[in-house]
Amino acid sequence: MTEFPQTSTLLVSCPDRRGIVAALAQVLHGHGANILDSDQHTDTEAGVFFQRICFDTRELLSDRTSLERAIDEVAERMGMRFQLSDSSTRKRLAIFVSRTDHCLYDLLLRQRAGELRCDIPLIVSNHPDLKPVADQFGIDFEVFPISADNKPAQERRELERLEAHGIDVIALARYMQVLSGDFVEHYPARIINIHHSFLPAFSGGRPYQQARERGVKLIGATAHYATLDLDEGPIIEQDVIRTSHRDSVADLTRKGRDVERSVLSHAVRWHLEDRVLVYGNKTVVFPG
Amino acid sequence: MTEFPQTSTLLVSCPDRRGIVAALAQVLHGHGANILDSDQHTDTEAGVFFQRICFDTRELLSDRTSLERAIDEVAERMGMRFQLSDSSTRKRLAIFVSRTDHCLYDLLLRQRAGELRCDIPLIVSNHPDLKPVADQFGIDFEVFPISADNKPAQERRELERLEAHGIDVIALARYMQVLSGDFVEHYPARIINIHHSFLPAFSGGRPYQQARERGVKLIGATAHYATLDLDEGPIIEQDVIRTSHRDSVADLTRKGRDVERSVLSHAVRWHLEDRVLVYGNKTVVFPG
Amino acid sequence: MTEFPQTSTLLVSCPDRRGIVAALAQVLHGHGANILDSDQHTDTEAGVFFQRICFDTRELLSDRTSLERAIDEVAERMGMRFQLSDSSTRKRLAIFVSRTDHCLYDLLLRQRAGELRCDIPLIVSNHPDLKPVADQFGIDFEVFPISADNKPAQERRELERLEAHGIDVIALARYMQVLSGDFVEHYPARIINIHHSFLPAFSGGRPYQQARERGVKLIGATAHYATLDLDEGPIIEQDVIRTSHRDSVADLTRKGRDVERSVLSHAVRWHLEDRVLVYGNKTVVFPG
Amino acid sequence: MTEFPQTSTLLVSCPDRRGIVAALAQVLHGHGANILDSDQHTDTEAGVFFQRICFDTRELLSDRTSLERAIDEVAERMGMRFQLSDSSTRKRLAIFVSRTDHCLYDLLLRQRAGELRCDIPLIVSNHPDLKPVADQFGIDFEVFPISADNKPAQERRELERLEAHGIDVIALARYMQVLSGDFVEHYPARIINIHHSFLPAFSGGRPYQQARERGVKLIGATAHYATLDLDEGPIIEQDVIRTSHRDSVADLTRKGRDVERSVLSHAVRWHLEDRVLVYGNKTVVFPG
Repeated sequence: MTEFPQTSTLLVSCPDRRGIVAALAQVLHGHGANILDSDQHTDTEAGVFFQRICFDTRELLSDRTSLERAIDEVAERMGMRFQLSDSSTRKRLAIFVSRTDHCLYDLLLRQRAGELRCDIPLIVSNHPDLKPVADQFGIDFEVFPISADNKPAQERRELERLEAHGIDVIALARYMQVLSGDFVEHYPARIINIHHSFLPAFSGGRPYQQARERGVKLIGATAHYATLDLDEGPIIEQDVIRTSHRDSVADLTRKGRDVERSVLSHAVRWHLEDRVLVYGNKTVVFPG
Repeated sequence: MTEFPQTSTLLVSCPDRRGIVAALAQVLHGHGANILDSDQHTDTEAGVFFQRICFDTRELLSDRTSLERAIDEVAERMGMRFQLSDSSTRKRLAIFVSRTDHCLYDLLLRQRAGELRCDIPLIVSNHPDLKPVADQFGIDFEVFPISADNKPAQERRELERLEAHGIDVIALARYMQVLSGDFVEHYPARIINIHHSFLPAFSGGRPYQQARERGVKLIGATAHYATLDLDEGPIIEQDVIRTSHRDSVADLTRKGRDVERSVLSHAVRWHLEDRVLVYGNKTVVFPG
Repeated sequence: MTEFPQTSTLLVSCPDRRGIVAALAQVLHGHGANILDSDQHTDTEAGVFFQRICFDTRELLSDRTSLERAIDEVAERMGMRFQLSDSSTRKRLAIFVSRTDHCLYDLLLRQRAGELRCDIPLIVSNHPDLKPVADQFGIDFEVFPISADNKPAQERRELERLEAHGIDVIALARYMQVLSGDFVEHYPARIINIHHSFLPAFSGGRPYQQARERGVKLIGATAHYATLDLDEGPIIEQDVIRTSHRDSVADLTRKGRDVERSVLSHAVRWHLEDRVLVYGNKTVVFPG
Repeated sequence: MTEFPQTSTLLVSCPDRRGIVAALAQVLHGHGANILDSDQHTDTEAGVFFQRICFDTRELLSDRTSLERAIDEVAERMGMRFQLSDSSTRKRLAIFVSRTDHCLYDLLLRQRAGELRCDIPLIVSNHPDLKPVADQFGIDFEVFPISADNKPAQERRELERLEAHGIDVIALARYMQVLSGDFVEHYPARIINIHHSFLPAFSGGRPYQQARERGVKLIGATAHYATLDLDEGPIIEQDVIRTSHRDSVADLTRKGRDVERSVLSHAVRWHLEDRVLVYGNKTVVFPG
């Protein structure tokens, strides 16, 4: 659903127990919030409760702070983790790239078309090649060449720049460098990577080559949160495309670009709209 | 979600207003119902509120009757239409067929595999051909040949038999007879038809022939509730399959059978699981 | 298949008769052409034969002219229409746009990435808005505002400019003006339009609005050759995307953009690679 | 394409060299065969040529034997492997099952509907459970319980029965026993297995459980020829279906059944229509 100018989104998870839905509904109703859309799920096996509530804030009876305090009180009682976002506050996205531009252009154009509710103040790269693209869109482009020697130092500088730009979330748009554990820990469940295979098949390098050698009839792409273990983070979205014996590695690469673009942009949009909850090594994605 | 042995499903719609979610959550919580899964949507344009709540009834503090009375009280206050189903009460499905068996077999096998939570006590046909299939599955098979002359009388007899079998919902599994308005009105939003095109394209007869003549690259199927206007009822589900110049009408028919089976079985399952709400000429389908 | 630096593609259609395959294979073999990929189809109902042959020209025993003459001789004998293209000669594509840029960017980026084997010397528009995009890619952008009064004159000027640029094929990338019959006749089966519905459903204007009103569960897009009859030309490619009750018209528009991009770019690529043959109001598309 | 009553299909592969297409076309034309449909591909990397030719035999100028002799002569000259099938000769399919019936029913119903051009004289199982299904379709059902001790002996008896029934091809329709290398070697590239994951992901046992644990957003199925290495044979067809956090293992199993049915039936149909060529550990599948 395209959301309205003045809405808030509440995303919660907690150990399953009775009365959570009622308690939250009561708090929101009591503060004059009109619920527009809510989606709730309980993983009965894991005993975990998840909910996403989108509500109209135009006729709130109290201010934002007192509403948040009331939710906080419920959260404490229920052992709940929650996140409250306002449609008026746009998240700030940094895009990391190397030399290929298809995912970068896709995110920039979607943001400009209003599909991605965020600001994009910064593009980071280990190569200077894509600066002209950043320039066209009027976005800062900062280059941090990475070598075995300078990696820790460069990552520290990157983190400084991210902080200076007030970055909330990072999209690795075919960024061909492995981030260190240190770096990743600064943005838990906030760095979205695109891998060009339907993981867990063909993890690691050259997945199209691997796919062609195995003779699969589908190739895919996977967007996941970056974690310490490469290609092992919680999966947000996956899709595939059909291939045939006529497809060379160049054809697979072309087809793959379409899937990568689509899968990465979905994952980023859902993250920006607070539709994704991580638990264990999995995600709950509330569709929209 | 596969639902649990002892769950109930509450499906509601009403004019949108504040406090509906809270009121329902409060009632359920107050009676000891543990909400397992809930999905809510507001059509802000039409000003209509929709919700589906699935809850565990194993630790209800009251009996079913007093819970229903309490919901009824909220419903009256809110101008709400609602429907409350228990997992222990299986809906009763009748299947109408003519001479082709693919949708019939599909529904019967899925029911036997536990995919469709219903009983199927009756198969109705205007031809005797598929009686052996009914026999294999131990289901009553009743033949009502229809002609211009006898249609009203035959439909009356069909309605008697449906009532005698306590039928809740009817699947027209490629039944090649138009039902009268009289008949349809006995089962409003409870007769599910499968049409072999992606409506509104190629309504009426011979859609594969029409599709081939127009040279479309996809053929489809549409499951909808039967209404007075043929092929115009609220759409529950649609899907398509790719075709090529190599496909003869026979190939389109084969591909079409796969889509018809899949689309009809989804629509029937969703109806049986109380996932479908009709408003105007459209449906809200809560996914599962 | 990604084709090789020095290949030619022969595309033929004719009334079906014996010996066509053998005659063409003989001619090609006799001139030293090595067939890399061939795909043949006979519409036995219509009695029409179609073939696409891609061959390696690196070891031709004769020159291009004498090969073409030999094919011509077979063509005359068989009543065949044929088209012979060399990988070294790139087709020249003009893109017509109005105010929306998603299809335009998509074609430009794909061309730059090497997915579309063509030159794009000219972008034509009835509005000045997208000139900056043309500038970024270094392409001529010419504006021809159209009114009821000036349409014939403006179209004549457009045709002059197209001729001056040696244009072979035109993509209407969401160009919001109907071309006159006169204009269309200058480029028979060489103007590719994208319509934002799965035709023949929702032809005419505002297809997303129509789709939402009818409550369909899929929306689509159709690429077809422009003909005198609006939205009635031979379909080259179609695809659909799933929608739900949560989708506003804005959401349908967003989802639709993805399908439009994908469908238009496929149609354009297939046309450029000589994969499309028109007969009657239908196409044969040899996949690749 | 639905093929005609009197057609033959020639399937060839050989090291790539000039003149193959011309030589075959010449032989067929010289014997009065009218080519209806042909599809050819060269893997330029591996240097292998593949072709499938379907031709009308109603006006052959010679008998079948002399045509085959002529093809044989070309084959010898070109180092070609070939296979010539007549539409009048139906292949004989045996189905191996254990306890689940969805793939079995699917193949039997498709065969009866005319989708699979074959006879099915024999169903083999390691359990007696599905005998009633075989009885309904009037097919021999033979039970061979397998234990570690009796496996070689039982497989020998199975091979005898397969030979007695003149079996050409075997479909493992969720047969839960690993075949020995000895057994597999009796039917090279003629035993089709269905695995319930998108291989190479989740090979081995319990793929739905594995899929759920990894949190993938798609589950799939793979049809491949059985080889000595379990789950490693040449892939014929794959497909996937979307899952969500709402899906329990039971839901994945239900969704999986649909994909398994579809993927296995495609693979079997393509094999029966001589559309599949194996080279190395991969397949070329000519679409139809």
